[in-house]
Amino acid sequence: MRIAQVAPLAEAVPPKMYGGTERVASWLTEELVRLGHEVTLFASGDSKTSAELVACAPEGLRLAGIRDHTASHLAMLAKVRERAASFDIIHFHLDLLQHAVFTDLAQKCVTTLHGRLDLPDFLPVYHAFPQMPLISISDCQRCPMPATANWLATVQHGLGRGLCPFDPRGGDYLAFLGRITPEKRPDRAIEIAKQAGMPLKIAAKVDPVDEDYYRAEIKPLLDHPLIEFIGEIDEGQKAAFLAGARALLFPIDWPEPFGLVMIESMSAGTPVIAWRNGSVPEVIKDGVSGIIVDSIAEAVVAAERSVTMDRYEVRRYFESRFTAARMASDYLDAFNRLLGSSGGRQSAAQWTQSRDALRPVQPGLQRGGAFG
Amino acid sequence: MRIAQVAPLAEAVPPKMYGGTERVASWLTEELVRLGHEVTLFASGDSKTSAELVACAPEGLRLAGIRDHTASHLAMLAKVRERAASFDIIHFHLDLLQHAVFTDLAQKCVTTLHGRLDLPDFLPVYHAFPQMPLISISDCQRCPMPATANWLATVQHGLGRGLCPFDPRGGDYLAFLGRITPEKRPDRAIEIAKQAGMPLKIAAKVDPVDEDYYRAEIKPLLDHPLIEFIGEIDEGQKAAFLAGARALLFPIDWPEPFGLVMIESMSAGTPVIAWRNGSVPEVIKDGVSGIIVDSIAEAVVAAERSVTMDRYEVRRYFESRFTAARMASDYLDAFNRLLGSSGGRQSAAQWTQSRDALRPVQPGLQRGGAFG
Repeated sequence: MRIAQVAPLAEAVPPKMYGGTERVASWLTEELVRLGHEVTLFASGDSKTSAELVACAPEGLRLAGIRDHTASHLAMLAKVRERAASFDIIHFHLDLLQHAVFTDLAQKCVTTLHGRLDLPDFLPVYHAFPQMPLISISDCQRCPMPATANWLATVQHGLGRGLCPFDPRGGDYLAFLGRITPEKRPDRAIEIAKQAGMPLKIAAKVDPVDEDYYRAEIKPLLDHPLIEFIGEIDEGQKAAFLAGARALLFPIDWPEPFGLVMIESMSAGTPVIAWRNGSVPEVIKDGVSGIIVDSIAEAVVAAERSVTMDRYEVRRYFESRFTAARMASDYLDAFNRLLGSSGGRQSAAQWTQSRDALRPVQPGLQRGGAFG
Repeated sequence: MRIAQVAPLAEAVPPKMYGGTERVASWLTEELVRLGHEVTLFASGDSKTSAELVACAPEGLRLAGIRDHTASHLAMLAKVRERAASFDIIHFHLDLLQHAVFTDLAQKCVTTLHGRLDLPDFLPVYHAFPQMPLISISDCQRCPMPATANWLATVQHGLGRGLCPFDPRGGDYLAFLGRITPEKRPDRAIEIAKQAGMPLKIAAKVDPVDEDYYRAEIKPLLDHPLIEFIGEIDEGQKAAFLAGARALLFPIDWPEPFGLVMIESMSAGTPVIAWRNGSVPEVIKDGVSGIIVDSIAEAVVAAERSVTMDRYEVRRYFESRFTAARMASDYLDAFNRLLGSSGGRQSAAQWTQSRDALRPVQPGLQRGGAFG
């Protein structure tokens, strides 16, 4: 299939630092190329890809100091339009602008919405362009959207190859990974660790906007022998941090649309103790890849119980559900459905073969095996 | 002519509080209606107009607490597109989005750029859509733009009727009106007043983003018998504040694209002492409607000289250049040029008659005369 992947310009694809959307766009792009599709990636010029790259800004806008990204994205859309006739599918990872610009090409355009959809700011566009095909990253993400929205599928994220290798041993600490924000509730993580009497390591950055919250609410809680705040870590450190943990705490207080860190943790074999909110019930298999809780008391019990959970089971669940291969396969199914049986250039049989790329669950996984 | 006026949704048209763009869009809309044109105003639902109003949001977005305006503006553009065939001209007062959405209707679309254009964030869109007709609000505003930009005209702003009535008497203080920001240089205004030994009244709001600047740089300068900080004032108070001044100080330190307060001051008969920057040399007739300076020393001399300036001359200059009637006439000329002699429904002769609405300069102006 001839596929355009249109990524945000905020970060390179993959990003040099943070950028969940750009990471997913990269994993999907590489997997589609691996499956033999003809992929063109519209992204910043410092992106790295095995697809054809169309550079739509010299570098990622955030690190270039560009604060308003609208003009750059509109210019990118002009480049996509110029070449629109040469694609079977145009797959956008932007939230808004393409709906107004590609209205007349709705039959071959699809948008993955990567963010929360419960803010009133964004809804007018989904009311105004109900014909545009949409993909959610969890079912719960859709709840605030208009009933008229044209949902094509939910496609959960999948992890790129080799990012968080399986570790059958794990470690003895609870892990908290992410930004220090009220929505992520690091205070809950600290309380759980203290009540469970287990060590907690917090690997987190503090954005300028969250400085006040950190100083007033979190810093006073850190002075305790069980709590270690290790600050910001990079991608390489992240894999070891997750692999070396007993369990990941994910005590969120907001409707998380997906939560990549949960599948990263499961990839390493580390179970996830997560609050029942947003995507959590769709991502965690309760009792297998983690434990879903509704209170501090339940989380304390879960932390103790996590010691006995089978890390191989966690990893197997990850492999059955959250690889980039599975994600690419789901996207191809969705593209295929949008185009109808005669819409694309490639036959349906050709691209559903990607389903086979889903590695069957293997007993006796080794660390650093074929996938991890 | 059948004209669509497409205003920003940030504020009502006219705005309840601040909003230079929405004020100008309102003055222009009312003047075009008065001249007999068939005008449709796309704006927030709490706008007041004698044109046909198409409500594109229940109320102005800022006061409604909507922070990201993109989706609302895209939905507005969908409404404009639905009715595009019924307009001879679609006149946008937005900076970015319409260039990508109305590319195929460039021959009847025109955009007034109301903001500064020297930020790299916005340039990609003007590179990407060079065919879209643009209007600047001063010649200097154009300088940072690509050479390929399709400039149709510069149309300086004009003031709506009766807003700042002429006052032949004036007063004895220097006035500073605007936000307290480093770009507006209230510190220069204070220094000029102190050196000239003339009282200064500062009517200004302090935005949250400028709180630190106000506290560190400006507040310490206010403790002086000549300096009075009167805070934020409303539209009604503004007219009296400007009319009662000896001169307005406009000691800007940035490339101001237009500067409405200069023409408001001139409307009241109050001359403007302004730094040579941005639009200033295009708006002030040096020695007639104000004095253009390059230093504190020159401004001090100008402040002393302003006592002898003829307020009738200032007002006459305003009337010859900065009424909404003149602005509407210039826009109609520009629309006419864009459409060509056969493009519009109305003959060129019909709408150039609006030129006659420009009142000739009258000697012996009375306060609250026909225009003011």
